[in-house]
Amino acid sequence: MRKIEHIGIAVKDIDSSNDLFALLFGKEHYKIEDVESEGVKTSFFKCGPNKIELLQATNENSPIAKFIEKKGEGIHHIAFAVDNIEKEIKRLTKEGFEMIHKAPKKGADNKLIAFLHPKSTNGVLVELCQEIKD
Amino acid sequence: MRKIEHIGIAVKDIDSSNDLFALLFGKEHYKIEDVESEGVKTSFFKCGPNKIELLQATNENSPIAKFIEKKGEGIHHIAFAVDNIEKEIKRLTKEGFEMIHKAPKKGADNKLIAFLHPKSTNGVLVELCQEIKD
Repeated sequence: MRKIEHIGIAVKDIDSSNDLFALLFGKEHYKIEDVESEGVKTSFFKCGPNKIELLQATNENSPIAKFIEKKGEGIHHIAFAVDNIEKEIKRLTKEGFEMIHKAPKKGADNKLIAFLHPKSTNGVLVELCQEIKD
Repeated sequence: MRKIEHIGIAVKDIDSSNDLFALLFGKEHYKIEDVESEGVKTSFFKCGPNKIELLQATNENSPIAKFIEKKGEGIHHIAFAVDNIEKEIKRLTKEGFEMIHKAPKKGADNKLIAFLHPKSTNGVLVELCQEIKD
């Protein structure tokens, strides 16, 4: 794992949170993106080599809606940048981690992604992500 | 804010979590440090330009003990590296954020630190940290 690619933060209202995080970072978000398959609207801020991804649910079955219902707004997941996501999935599965996604899928921000189940990682929802090269 | 300096993760047993995160990252932690003033034992992993800090409570009044009692193990805070922590505290206070620490204090890993109250940051516990130069 090369670095923290981003931290995902579950928010109720992405517009007001965009304003709030713009004040926090002293700069605006650089991208808004809908990920229909996940039922989320996302917004990204850069912070040096890392990013912050705000996540708002777009329907009540969205994982983000369920997360906020259970735990309230706050940090939802950590995503680590990897060079070869298929190799990492194999390595982690062999080490005994439980993958939510056993094969990479298309995520936001031009990435292949796969999540690990938080019950195998001390309650932390971990995402692997690999940049899709054109 | 220059980058995500580290992510703090609340754990019940730092020894077993050290083993778990060593498997996740494919490498061992590089430091263990007690922060008596906070009632925590910490352990650090490097991940490129970022770090992961595991936090175990050393007494029942520790903020980490209270966090785990309320929310279970998991991501506790995000720390951002800043060049001038006093200037950032002033800027954020002026922008309306509520600081838990109105002046920097000594934290783990040779840092001056200050926390923002999560009620002013969408439920996210945010730490500012500045490297102490010898």
